[in-house]
Amino acid sequence: MDTNAVLDLMWVVIAGILVFFMQAGFTLVETGFTRSKNTGNIIMKNIMDFCIGSVVFWAIGYSLMYGDSISSFIGTPSWFFSKPNEMHNLFFQTVFAATAATIVSGAIAERTKFSTYLIFSLLMTLIIYPISGHWVWQSGGWLAKMGFTDFAGSSVVHSVGGWAALVAAIMVGPRIGKYTKGKSNAIPGHNLLIGSLGVFILWFGWFGFNGGSELAISGEHANNVADIIITTNLAGAAGALSAMFVTWIAYGRPDISMTLNGILAGLVAVTAGCAAVSPAGAFAIGLIAGIVVVFAIDFIDKKLKIDDPVGAISVHGVSGALGTLLVGVFATDGGLLYGGGFHKLGIQAIGVFAIAAWAITISFIVLFILKKTIGLRVSKEEEVDGLDIHEHKTNCFNE
Amino acid sequence: MDTNAVLDLMWVVIAGILVFFMQAGFTLVETGFTRSKNTGNIIMKNIMDFCIGSVVFWAIGYSLMYGDSISSFIGTPSWFFSKPNEMHNLFFQTVFAATAATIVSGAIAERTKFSTYLIFSLLMTLIIYPISGHWVWQSGGWLAKMGFTDFAGSSVVHSVGGWAALVAAIMVGPRIGKYTKGKSNAIPGHNLLIGSLGVFILWFGWFGFNGGSELAISGEHANNVADIIITTNLAGAAGALSAMFVTWIAYGRPDISMTLNGILAGLVAVTAGCAAVSPAGAFAIGLIAGIVVVFAIDFIDKKLKIDDPVGAISVHGVSGALGTLLVGVFATDGGLLYGGGFHKLGIQAIGVFAIAAWAITISFIVLFILKKTIGLRVSKEEEVDGLDIHEHKTNCFNE
Amino acid sequence: MDTNAVLDLMWVVIAGILVFFMQAGFTLVETGFTRSKNTGNIIMKNIMDFCIGSVVFWAIGYSLMYGDSISSFIGTPSWFFSKPNEMHNLFFQTVFAATAATIVSGAIAERTKFSTYLIFSLLMTLIIYPISGHWVWQSGGWLAKMGFTDFAGSSVVHSVGGWAALVAAIMVGPRIGKYTKGKSNAIPGHNLLIGSLGVFILWFGWFGFNGGSELAISGEHANNVADIIITTNLAGAAGALSAMFVTWIAYGRPDISMTLNGILAGLVAVTAGCAAVSPAGAFAIGLIAGIVVVFAIDFIDKKLKIDDPVGAISVHGVSGALGTLLVGVFATDGGLLYGGGFHKLGIQAIGVFAIAAWAITISFIVLFILKKTIGLRVSKEEEVDGLDIHEHKTNCFNE
Repeated sequence: MDTNAVLDLMWVVIAGILVFFMQAGFTLVETGFTRSKNTGNIIMKNIMDFCIGSVVFWAIGYSLMYGDSISSFIGTPSWFFSKPNEMHNLFFQTVFAATAATIVSGAIAERTKFSTYLIFSLLMTLIIYPISGHWVWQSGGWLAKMGFTDFAGSSVVHSVGGWAALVAAIMVGPRIGKYTKGKSNAIPGHNLLIGSLGVFILWFGWFGFNGGSELAISGEHANNVADIIITTNLAGAAGALSAMFVTWIAYGRPDISMTLNGILAGLVAVTAGCAAVSPAGAFAIGLIAGIVVVFAIDFIDKKLKIDDPVGAISVHGVSGALGTLLVGVFATDGGLLYGGGFHKLGIQAIGVFAIAAWAITISFIVLFILKKTIGLRVSKEEEVDGLDIHEHKTNCFNE
Repeated sequence: MDTNAVLDLMWVVIAGILVFFMQAGFTLVETGFTRSKNTGNIIMKNIMDFCIGSVVFWAIGYSLMYGDSISSFIGTPSWFFSKPNEMHNLFFQTVFAATAATIVSGAIAERTKFSTYLIFSLLMTLIIYPISGHWVWQSGGWLAKMGFTDFAGSSVVHSVGGWAALVAAIMVGPRIGKYTKGKSNAIPGHNLLIGSLGVFILWFGWFGFNGGSELAISGEHANNVADIIITTNLAGAAGALSAMFVTWIAYGRPDISMTLNGILAGLVAVTAGCAAVSPAGAFAIGLIAGIVVVFAIDFIDKKLKIDDPVGAISVHGVSGALGTLLVGVFATDGGLLYGGGFHKLGIQAIGVFAIAAWAITISFIVLFILKKTIGLRVSKEEEVDGLDIHEHKTNCFNE
Repeated sequence: MDTNAVLDLMWVVIAGILVFFMQAGFTLVETGFTRSKNTGNIIMKNIMDFCIGSVVFWAIGYSLMYGDSISSFIGTPSWFFSKPNEMHNLFFQTVFAATAATIVSGAIAERTKFSTYLIFSLLMTLIIYPISGHWVWQSGGWLAKMGFTDFAGSSVVHSVGGWAALVAAIMVGPRIGKYTKGKSNAIPGHNLLIGSLGVFILWFGWFGFNGGSELAISGEHANNVADIIITTNLAGAAGALSAMFVTWIAYGRPDISMTLNGILAGLVAVTAGCAAVSPAGAFAIGLIAGIVVVFAIDFIDKKLKIDDPVGAISVHGVSGALGTLLVGVFATDGGLLYGGGFHKLGIQAIGVFAIAAWAITISFIVLFILKKTIGLRVSKEEEVDGLDIHEHKTNCFNE
C-alpha cells in the first residue's frame, strides 16, 4: 500500500475510534438528563444500539448503503461485508450508523419497552439509515446526483435520527406526569454533571465525525481536514454562546441544559457544511443553531406537547435540517451569500424534505406495526417504579 | 527516519495513548461495581498500578521481557531503558504492563491492605508479567519458538492478570457478609453508570490495545490494522449480545452487569486472535466468550465460593484462556475449522497451561510470603467501615 | 502538500483533539473537588472558557501572540485569522489558550459572580495569555531571543494561569466558613471519583499537550515525540509516588487528593523541559514537584490563608515555575547538572519572574476594575445556598 493510502487509512481508523467514543457521550447525556430510576435501561439501549448496529451493518446494512446503486434508491445487497482493503471504511461507516440509531433512544426514554426498542434499533441500522444514506453518500444516489451537499451527515445521520425520534416520541406518548391540566411539567434530569461530561465526549468525538468524513488526509486533503476541525469547533462554541445568551435574556438565567444543547445544535448544524463554509460561516451557523434549538425545544415541549426528555428532536432533527439548509446560504461555492443565488438552497431543501419524509414515513410504519403487536410502552407500574427494577431487576445506584 | 518508520512510530504512540486511557476505564469499572465506601482506595490502587508500573518497567521490567533471551526463559536485565529510537516501544509496553497489574485489583477489592497491594502490584510488573511475556513476545522465548499465537495478549496480559487474581481472591478470602450459611449474597455495586462508562472507555482503548499490537501501520500493515479494528469491534459487540440473551433466557432479565462483562469477555477473548481470524471468526469468538463469562462468573461465585467483586477472574482469566485456545479453532491459517487439524490448538493449549501455571505458582509464593509477613487483609472494623475512612482518612462522596 | 507536511499536520490535529478533551478533565477536577451545590456553575465556567476562548483567539488573540513582533513585546494584530494552510496551528494554539483561562476557574470556585468570571476569562484569552506567550513562543519575543526554554508551557500556559489564579483568589477572598478563628477548615469536595476521572483525562490529554508541542512528527521529529511521551509519563508517575509517600509519612495516610495533585504537579513541571531532559531527569522533576506541591498547598491554605478550593495556584503556578526553573538544572544541553553552569538557570529564572510579574500585574488591574464596577463576589445568600440555584436556577443533582 502506498504512503498516501496508509495515511488516509490511518486517519479514517483514528477518526472512527473517536466516533465510537461518542456512544459513551450519548449514554451519559441521555442518563444525565433523565431520572436515575431508568439509568440501567438507558445504558442497555445505548450499548445495544452499537452492538446490534455493528453486527447488522457488517452483515447487510453497509451493502444496502454503499453497494452498486439500484435505481439510485438502494445499494445491491450482499452478505457479510468482506471486501479486502476496505475494513477501515466498514468501521467508519458502522460507527456512523450506530449514531443514527442512538438518537432515537433519548426521545423515548423512561417509558418504552426494551424489547420493542431493540427491534426498532435493529431496523434503524438495517433499513432506515442505509437507504436515505444511499441517496446522498453513494455517488449513484439520486440526491448525490442532484448535487445535494451533506458532508458528514447533518441530514444523513442526525436528521434521520431526529425525525424518527419525533415519530417515536409522538407514538409512544408522554411520560406519566409530564403534561397535567394542559401544562408541561419539567422533569429534571438526575445528574447534569454526567450530562455535561457526555457533551464534552460528543464534542471530542465530533472532530473525528466531521474530520474523518473527508475520508482521507494525504496531499491536499490535509488542509481540508484542518479547515473542518476549525469550522466544527467554532460552530460548537458559537452554539453554546448563543444558547446561553438567549436564555439569559429570555429567561433571566444562563441555562445549563440549554447551553449544552446549544453546543450539540451547533455541532449538528455544521456537520453538513463543515467542508463547504468558511470559519466565519461556521460561526454564523453555530450562532443560528444555538438560538433556534432553544425555541425549538420549548415549542415542541410546551406548544406541541411532545415529550422528548433530552431534546433529541430539536438537537438532531431541527438542527440537522437547519444546518443542511444553511449550506445553501453559507457555502463559499454556490451559497446564497456568496452570489450563488437560490439554486443550491433549493437543492438542499429538496434533500431535507426527502430525508424527513422518508424517515417519518418508514418510522411510522415500523412503530405502528410494533404498537399493534408487542406494544411500545411499559406498564404504568413499571414506568412509575422505574424501568431498571422491572425490565432489568436491578438498581444502578446503591450504597 | 524514513516515512514508513515515522508512520509506524506515530501509530504506536497514538495506540499507546489510547491504552493509557484504559486505566481510567479499569478504575471506573472497579469503583462502579463495588461499594462507595471503598472508592478512594480503589482509585489509589489503580493510580499506583500505573505509576509503579511505569517506573518499574522503565527501570528493569522492559529488559526482563524484551532483552536478549537467557535460555528462552527471561530477558537479559539492564537498568533504566534508554535505547535511542525505541522510546515509543517502551511506552507501548509500559501501558500494557500496567494493565496486567490492574486486573488483580478488582478481584481483591474492598478488603485488601493497601501496602500489601502496592508490593504485589510492583512484583507483578517487575517479575510476573515480564517473564511469561518474554516466553511469547520475545522472538527467542520458548513459546514463541513453538509457534504459540497470542497477538495482543489474551494470555500474556489478561490471563496472567486473571490467574493472579484467582490466587489472590482465594488467599485474601471473601468479603464479610458475602457468604453466609453456605449462600452467596449479592453485594451490589454503588454506581453502574460509572461502571458502564468504564466499559466504554475500555472498549475505546482496546482499539489501541489490539490495533497497536501490529506495532506498525506502514505498507501492508495498514490493512492488517483495519482488519484488527473490525475483529475487535465485532467480538465486543457479539459478547454483549450473547451475554444479554443468555441472562434474558436463563434469569428472565437482560442483565446489565453481565452484558457489560460480556463486552469485556468478547474483547479479552479476541485479543489473542484479532489478527489471525476473519470477521466471522471474531464474531463467533465474541459470542462464545459472552456465554461462557456468564456461567463462569456464576460458577466461581456460587459453586467455588470465591469472592471476585468485579468478575475479573472470569473476564480476564477464563476469557483470556478461552480466546487463546479459540485461535486454534478459528485461525484462518492453521485453525481447526480451516483444515489445520489439532496441531495449532495443541500449541495454544500448551501456552495457556504454561502461562496459567506460571501465574498461579508465582502469585501463590508472593502472596504467601506477604500473608506471613505484613498480612493481606485489613481488620474487620476497617472493612466494615470502609477502607477509605481508615486507610486514607477520607470520604470520597460528600455534599 | 508533501508527505512530511501531512504527517506533521495530522499529528498536530490529533494532539489538539487530545488537548481539547482536557477541558472535560478540568471540569471534572473542579466539580469533584468542590461542593455539589456549585456544580452547574463550574460546568458553565469551564464550557465558557473554551467557547469564549475559541472565538476570541480566532478573532484576534492568535495574531497578538504569533503575529510579527512589535518590539519583541506583542504580535501585530489582525482580525479573524484565515491564513491558508495554517488552520491546524490555529486549532492547536486555541486549545492551549483555553487551558490557561480554565486554570483560574478552580481557584475562585464557589463564590465568584458568573458574569465577572466571563469577562475575566475573555480578557485572559484576549490579552493576558497571548502577550506573555508572544515573549516566549514567537521567535521574535524577547524571552525567546534570550534563550529561555519553555517547550510546552509550564510557564506560558500553567504559570500564567496559576499566578492569575493567585491574584484572583486573594481579591475574591475565601469562601464563607473557610477560615474561622484563624483556623483553616477543610471543605471536602463532593465527589473524588469524578475528580480522579478528571485527572486521568488530563493525563491522557497531556500526551497531546506535550507531544503535540513538537509541532511536527516527520523525520527526526518522530523520536523527539516518543521521548517527550516518555518524559511526560514518568514525571506524572513520579509526582504521584512522591506526593503519596510524603503524605503517608507526614500525615500518616496516603492522601488521595494530594496524590491526584501530585500527578498534575509532575505533569505541569515537566511541560517546560519534556523535550530537553532525559527520562531520569523527568523522573526527578516529577518527584520534586510531587513533594513541593503538597507543602505548597498546605502553605497557601494554612499559612497564607488564601482559599484555593482545587489547589490551582500550587499545581499550576508553583509547579509551573518550579518546572521551568528545573530545566536549568536537568536540561541535558546546558543544565546545571550537565556541566552547563548557572547560565541557563539564570535565564530560566528571568523568564519565570517576568511571566509571574506580568500575570500578577495585569490580573490585578483587570480584577480591580471589575471589583469596582460589577463586583467579584456573589451575595452571602447566594454563596450559602449555592450558585446553581441562584445564578442558573437549577439543581444539577436530582432523583
